[in-house]
Amino acid sequence: MSAKGWTKDPRLFRERVRRGQWRSSTAGICPGYVQANLVILPKEFALDFTVFCIRNPQPCPILEILDPGDPTPHEMAPGADIRTDLPMYRIFKDGALVEEREDIGEYWRDDLVSYLIGCSYTFEEALVRGGVPVRNYLERKDPGIYISNIPCRPAGIFSGPMVVTMRPIPASLVSRAVQITARFPKAHGAPVHIGDGALIGIPDLRRVDFGEVPDIEEGEVPVFWACGVTPQVVALRSRIPFMITHKPGHMFVTDLRIEEIASS
Amino acid sequence: MSAKGWTKDPRLFRERVRRGQWRSSTAGICPGYVQANLVILPKEFALDFTVFCIRNPQPCPILEILDPGDPTPHEMAPGADIRTDLPMYRIFKDGALVEEREDIGEYWRDDLVSYLIGCSYTFEEALVRGGVPVRNYLERKDPGIYISNIPCRPAGIFSGPMVVTMRPIPASLVSRAVQITARFPKAHGAPVHIGDGALIGIPDLRRVDFGEVPDIEEGEVPVFWACGVTPQVVALRSRIPFMITHKPGHMFVTDLRIEEIASS
Repeated sequence: MSAKGWTKDPRLFRERVRRGQWRSSTAGICPGYVQANLVILPKEFALDFTVFCIRNPQPCPILEILDPGDPTPHEMAPGADIRTDLPMYRIFKDGALVEEREDIGEYWRDDLVSYLIGCSYTFEEALVRGGVPVRNYLERKDPGIYISNIPCRPAGIFSGPMVVTMRPIPASLVSRAVQITARFPKAHGAPVHIGDGALIGIPDLRRVDFGEVPDIEEGEVPVFWACGVTPQVVALRSRIPFMITHKPGHMFVTDLRIEEIASS
Repeated sequence: MSAKGWTKDPRLFRERVRRGQWRSSTAGICPGYVQANLVILPKEFALDFTVFCIRNPQPCPILEILDPGDPTPHEMAPGADIRTDLPMYRIFKDGALVEEREDIGEYWRDDLVSYLIGCSYTFEEALVRGGVPVRNYLERKDPGIYISNIPCRPAGIFSGPMVVTMRPIPASLVSRAVQITARFPKAHGAPVHIGDGALIGIPDLRRVDFGEVPDIEEGEVPVFWACGVTPQVVALRSRIPFMITHKPGHMFVTDLRIEEIASS
């Protein structure tokens, strides 16, 4: 990765993105800073979606909800604009992906409510700093991502299964991995399942729904965390007429340091 | 306090309340179980109020949001009915208290959204178990409650100052008090201020806005926590046309044990 200053400072990085000079993944960008998933919905669906997130805090940890029509995350990144400051967006209509775009200005409306939702990049960094090797993080790949059979608690029009990520962890470090990620409830928190994937509807770990097929080495235990793809999948299943998200891996980089969202 | 079984078991206690056999404070009832503040609002104000709570998690920690028209907290107390299972309610219209009632059945509407919000009884119990004496808890009194000058983050029609409670803590135990309450973010969490009340707009601790005038003894430090009265005060200032709450101190007793809402 470049050692240039603007890959270390969230404000400088977002400025580059805004000028169209970065359209790639944000993995490894601005180490130490919290990155976020983005979901944008019309206000008429916002109460149901907010309650869905509150009822399912592990897959959907809310970092910030913006006012209707307001594109600035005043808590996480004052001065930023979520319409231009992510490298790539996805536009969904009636539950289907219709377009991938570099900015969403022409789709913006005064009734749109934007959500910043915690992201696993945060806890992967914490794990590695804490001495737990995370293969996909070190190789700059996505983990295996699976639609489990763990039901989310429904809210209004939103319901569906929890999406999970799996990372193989050496058996001697599983306990440490739980402890480290438990300190980050705003980034999916502690694992939701440890061990046999079949018990949560994932009999074959090579058959991923998203992400990359993982290598599991001898002596490693599959450890499953709730995944920020859940709200997107659930929102699409509800066939809401309009939704905008980031392109997977192309996150919003906030001004908050990881330590600022750690629990005590 | 009575040692009768129904004062120890939340289901039995709520059944007594429902039958009209308990109309007093819930202080000291069902030790070890989480108690909750209740706020009930029409759905048209629910998105703003929910976002207000999310933006102000210390005064307004959401334990559960019920579906519109649904009186049962399916997570915190399956089978309960928040219309009958609290000892006393308050009815507000256009920002003014109009009535105190034993049940709210005749006010119930299909568009009402109910919120269970964390309560300081939970962390007071944790403090005492952790070796930190809490005078008001041990004397079964309310702490001093003050309207501070700390602004809440506004959301829609809701804005206003944070309401805080003050408990005098021996100087040698202040650090422990912070550590213990930090483990309970769903019950107001760590203190918001420690020391001179004048710095948060409370120059004279004897002039309480609610609760009881505290005694402060030599060697004790005033420690301030965010207070669950905040959402009520803020909602009233917004002059929303209709709101129901519990009567202060007359809480909803949930089935959850305190340890179940502790952070890691």
